[in-house]
Amino acid sequence: MEDKSDDMKRLFEPKSVLVVGASREETKIGYKVIRNMVYAGYNGLVFPVNPKGGEVLGYPIYTSIDEIEVGDEGIDMGIIIVPAKFVYQAIESCARKKVKHNLIISSGFSEIGNNKEETRIVRFARENGMRVLGPNMFGIYSRNAPINCTFGVKDVNPGEVAIITQSGAIGLSMMGRTVVENIGLSAIAAVGNKADLDEADLLQYLMYDDNTRVVLMYIEGIKNGDRFVEALEGTTKVKPVIIIKSGRSKRGAMAAASHTGSLAGEDNVFDDIMRQCGVLRADTINEALSWCKFISHNPLPRGENSVIVTNGGGVGVLCTDACEKYNIQLYDDAQTLREVFTPVTPELGSVKNPIDITGQAMSGAYSEALDAALSCDGIDTVFALYCEKEGFSEQEFSKMIKDNYDKFQKTDKVISFSIFGGEVVDHCLKGLGKMKIPVYGDVYDAVSPVGAVYSYYRYLKNCGGVKVDIDLNFDSIDKIVADVKKQDRFFLLAHEAQKIMNIAGIKIPETRIASSLKDAVQSAEEIGYPVVMKVVSKDIIHKSDAGGIALDLINESEVADAYEAIMKNCRAKVPNALIEGVEVAEMVQEGTEFIVGAKIDKSFGPIVMVGLGGIYVEVMKDVAFRAFPLKQKDVVSMIQQIRSYPLLLGVRGEERKDIEALVDSIIKLGSIIYRCHGISDIEVNPVLVYEQGMGVKALDVRILLSRD
Amino acid sequence: MEDKSDDMKRLFEPKSVLVVGASREETKIGYKVIRNMVYAGYNGLVFPVNPKGGEVLGYPIYTSIDEIEVGDEGIDMGIIIVPAKFVYQAIESCARKKVKHNLIISSGFSEIGNNKEETRIVRFARENGMRVLGPNMFGIYSRNAPINCTFGVKDVNPGEVAIITQSGAIGLSMMGRTVVENIGLSAIAAVGNKADLDEADLLQYLMYDDNTRVVLMYIEGIKNGDRFVEALEGTTKVKPVIIIKSGRSKRGAMAAASHTGSLAGEDNVFDDIMRQCGVLRADTINEALSWCKFISHNPLPRGENSVIVTNGGGVGVLCTDACEKYNIQLYDDAQTLREVFTPVTPELGSVKNPIDITGQAMSGAYSEALDAALSCDGIDTVFALYCEKEGFSEQEFSKMIKDNYDKFQKTDKVISFSIFGGEVVDHCLKGLGKMKIPVYGDVYDAVSPVGAVYSYYRYLKNCGGVKVDIDLNFDSIDKIVADVKKQDRFFLLAHEAQKIMNIAGIKIPETRIASSLKDAVQSAEEIGYPVVMKVVSKDIIHKSDAGGIALDLINESEVADAYEAIMKNCRAKVPNALIEGVEVAEMVQEGTEFIVGAKIDKSFGPIVMVGLGGIYVEVMKDVAFRAFPLKQKDVVSMIQQIRSYPLLLGVRGEERKDIEALVDSIIKLGSIIYRCHGISDIEVNPVLVYEQGMGVKALDVRILLSRD
Repeated sequence: MEDKSDDMKRLFEPKSVLVVGASREETKIGYKVIRNMVYAGYNGLVFPVNPKGGEVLGYPIYTSIDEIEVGDEGIDMGIIIVPAKFVYQAIESCARKKVKHNLIISSGFSEIGNNKEETRIVRFARENGMRVLGPNMFGIYSRNAPINCTFGVKDVNPGEVAIITQSGAIGLSMMGRTVVENIGLSAIAAVGNKADLDEADLLQYLMYDDNTRVVLMYIEGIKNGDRFVEALEGTTKVKPVIIIKSGRSKRGAMAAASHTGSLAGEDNVFDDIMRQCGVLRADTINEALSWCKFISHNPLPRGENSVIVTNGGGVGVLCTDACEKYNIQLYDDAQTLREVFTPVTPELGSVKNPIDITGQAMSGAYSEALDAALSCDGIDTVFALYCEKEGFSEQEFSKMIKDNYDKFQKTDKVISFSIFGGEVVDHCLKGLGKMKIPVYGDVYDAVSPVGAVYSYYRYLKNCGGVKVDIDLNFDSIDKIVADVKKQDRFFLLAHEAQKIMNIAGIKIPETRIASSLKDAVQSAEEIGYPVVMKVVSKDIIHKSDAGGIALDLINESEVADAYEAIMKNCRAKVPNALIEGVEVAEMVQEGTEFIVGAKIDKSFGPIVMVGLGGIYVEVMKDVAFRAFPLKQKDVVSMIQQIRSYPLLLGVRGEERKDIEALVDSIIKLGSIIYRCHGISDIEVNPVLVYEQGMGVKALDVRILLSRD
Repeated sequence: MEDKSDDMKRLFEPKSVLVVGASREETKIGYKVIRNMVYAGYNGLVFPVNPKGGEVLGYPIYTSIDEIEVGDEGIDMGIIIVPAKFVYQAIESCARKKVKHNLIISSGFSEIGNNKEETRIVRFARENGMRVLGPNMFGIYSRNAPINCTFGVKDVNPGEVAIITQSGAIGLSMMGRTVVENIGLSAIAAVGNKADLDEADLLQYLMYDDNTRVVLMYIEGIKNGDRFVEALEGTTKVKPVIIIKSGRSKRGAMAAASHTGSLAGEDNVFDDIMRQCGVLRADTINEALSWCKFISHNPLPRGENSVIVTNGGGVGVLCTDACEKYNIQLYDDAQTLREVFTPVTPELGSVKNPIDITGQAMSGAYSEALDAALSCDGIDTVFALYCEKEGFSEQEFSKMIKDNYDKFQKTDKVISFSIFGGEVVDHCLKGLGKMKIPVYGDVYDAVSPVGAVYSYYRYLKNCGGVKVDIDLNFDSIDKIVADVKKQDRFFLLAHEAQKIMNIAGIKIPETRIASSLKDAVQSAEEIGYPVVMKVVSKDIIHKSDAGGIALDLINESEVADAYEAIMKNCRAKVPNALIEGVEVAEMVQEGTEFIVGAKIDKSFGPIVMVGLGGIYVEVMKDVAFRAFPLKQKDVVSMIQQIRSYPLLLGVRGEERKDIEALVDSIIKLGSIIYRCHGISDIEVNPVLVYEQGMGVKALDVRILLSRD
């Protein structure tokens, strides 16, 4: 990907802004945008334009863009707030003033089917060295400028969360919500219809921005998934990315498609590729905001050992459940736990994790237990739970929590609190929440953000390595495909698909066509016993009924007998049939049935897949996907992700299967899709996986070509 | 179950209360319990007892129970708040005053391993016509009395939610939380160690209590699951029951076991049986309270047609996702929707569900859209979503929501609101929440309680019918089991298990032992071709190596040839072997492999199970459970619940399988476990399921006996 961070710098840190459609009327967007810029303390040049002229908030309004004098450096940003039909004209005049980025707030384009005008505008902009954000968007806030040229909330909290949103309504409401939740923003950008710039471009800036500690995206559909994947992989190497993607359900995906005109794609493909990129996916907006808040104020964990400290057994159990749900490992070194917590745990408590300091524990005892956890080197993360007891004092408890949080913050240990009770607890929660201390009213809420953090922690530990690049004879494959396309055919015949498998070095059942008894025997000897034999004749449809099939032939004499029998049977049953010979094929050994495939996904481009094969594909839907190109370990993690993975490790005393050969075949299929021209789909179902070292065998291969 | 609602009435509506361990000190539980009774306006007789005497809140304190004069009717409730070692003595004196129910608040019993004293106390109580609630509990609140003899919050909101809790800390905190959330309670009861009375007993009262509209339970472990199931089935017929069960995870279950001493059992068994009983299971306390609040203030739906009305496409899509997650059906009659909503939807909006009235819509337009939904007979439920826009007014919007909610409440239609935005929206949310109007800050939160309500609605529609009661020759099975037990053996040999299958009429592969060629042929003829044949000899371990096996014999001559060959081979390979004959067996046709079983579960007693069989059992864990006895349709719903159910309907052009025969075999196994003595486990894996009308075949049957 070309480095566009400099371009993007002019978007997020503009030195000059042109507002086409500025207004003096306070209810108009053309006013609010300028009001918000002023309020945010923007100190660059502002050029409001409106044919009516006048003045807005101290800025003189130009009646025409052409009145504005600009130097060679041009103007960094043009904000377009005029009706759709005037936008092209506005962009033309922006070009004359060397505007770099056009933020088209105006709506009335592809979101209502007016794709033509949108395309015309973007083409003109690109031809004139300009970029477009939008149309149909609400502006940008950027702490670094500082600038708030949105028509949303004017009093944004500066902070370390960057938000990119495809939905205007949700984006504006999220801005409001960040104020309520006391979440600080480094940037917020609406991408609208993504006619030109999209999330991948904005990430080019945000990934390098030191003020951005976490990026949150609300997405409805992906257009250029391969660029997006590359940008995400770059970003997640240095900071966490959280995504909410609506259209998770089938029906939701349809609704999203009709709403934004962008294709939602299969949600499980999206989900798996986000996992591959190390992205944290949140289900709900509240969950995503909660993760952002936690991540922007807390360190990454240093290890996996978590301890629960509780004053009630019940919430301790609930928290244990929550830890399993969010994939958090509880520390289990019984001896260390005993040594650390026995001095601070009453006799009736428990020094097994969860550590139960019992209902007697008031704030002092609580503090002691947390101190003990803090001083133990083996403990990385603490969940501190409290159920309200008589004698609970808001002041005392709030202070205890704040003090302990501060102590943890001085180290690289993570702590999350959950307190549960009535009105006093509620006050306590609200007060501490404002101080950005992670305190929650439900144990699951306290565990969820830590789960997200651990998920990112594990990704970071494991995200190194290079992408596979294997060398196959792609030219030969291209030639086969080209020959098929010449016939206006968009699927490969069995022997063509088999040729490609041979080129890729993926084993298929061996077959020979024999036209004589001698040939048949020789073929069988070459293939190796046992073999199966089938009559080859266009005139014999039901080979089995005609006695034209023989199975499990184990030596020369059986092959000879079967050959004679097949000829005799077929001649008797279908007297006039033209018999070309027999097909002699390897009798395939039983193996574990999987499915592997590669295809060009409409959102993401080349992707690979693996799953439980045979008749179980549709029923169990136990499949996983990854974007291609990828690292070898991505393929391994894809295979480990499917529920039927244990079948490959061997169940019920079976041997471990040849996982390496399965990985190899997936990489080969992915490489073919990625490097060869015109193939849209390769599916092998079933692929039989044999014991380690014995490889795999592709039983049924289906290859489709793209029609464009 | 004996009718104990009268007994339970004395617990929830006591006319007289004895407090053993009453105190004048305000920090003591013995004081708080009396303070809360006074505060709740209890107007029955109160007899505080404490050797120190004196007076508490206007009540004279008796220095000894024996001072109290009571009539023949005795005292309804004795509350015991003395140290564990004095409890037995207190119970003895309660017996002298004909106390009916003893609430033992005192702790120090089975929860710390002191089972012996707990058992002694309960035995004494039961022998003297008394019941025990607890020990290790925090008291009871009952709106009907009214009485609050807990040591928790004193200002409980009277309302229609009854809470039963196994955890004291969580129960007390939930009491507090109900005040914050403005949730009204009809009752709250802690069951503590459940040494005598348990949830099943309390339900005997609550199911008939008109003031209780919904029952919420927090559970850590089940002791007498069969009684519990019966009580739940009785209750859910008339009102919803919501359960939070901690110990959902494996590790959580271990923590719960060590915390309460009660066995959590397998969570998937619990989950499935709750489904069978029509119980709504919540994951978190917040979710459960939210459901309670919604259910206690809103009607049950009258049908399944839900409509989303939104001012933003994005939240509309999120809500669509949430509806799929919570299993809510969106209304799809395009013509009706067009007719109803076109007049109230701007041109750029959408009259497809979700109905998008666009960002222009302010409260007036919103109200019109909701009126339209209200007036349409086809619409049963509405989700009204709003993203904050400029010009949003708290007063105006709150009024609009309240007015529309009131209109819906006058009908039997359900409505749930979600509004999303900044500080003004936040105030709006809080204000409406206090009025018990279902308004939420996240669409998922707005959909979740409606999903719970629909789940209950569907259960109610389908909960009729009688439990199966089939007649098998149980005596014969008992005899087989008794004979095995005589040998001190706790598993059945193959032929014993086969005998039981024969008695139950569950088909197994037919086999005969033949000691001569003539015998073998006759056996084969009786069984029907094709058959397989195996040598029978204790001296030949590796039958296959010895050439002692022949497969797929299709006629008399093949059987004869194979018999000779087996004899010849075996005599040659193992010269001194004593050959008893051959086993002639049906060659089993391929079928779809499932697993069926029945067992005595430690928590629930007799249960049945079904799942995908063969090697997939452990890997896919696609199994479902139900408590036995049950209705035929419970078995059907159990089968439909497994992911591999489509295999039974036929995939890839296969015929539908014999589901009826599978149901029949499960009912038979359940009946055997339920009616016969000493069998703890029956597992058939695989059971082959054939095409409809062709039955099932039990290939491998494993039967275990109980050791007690």
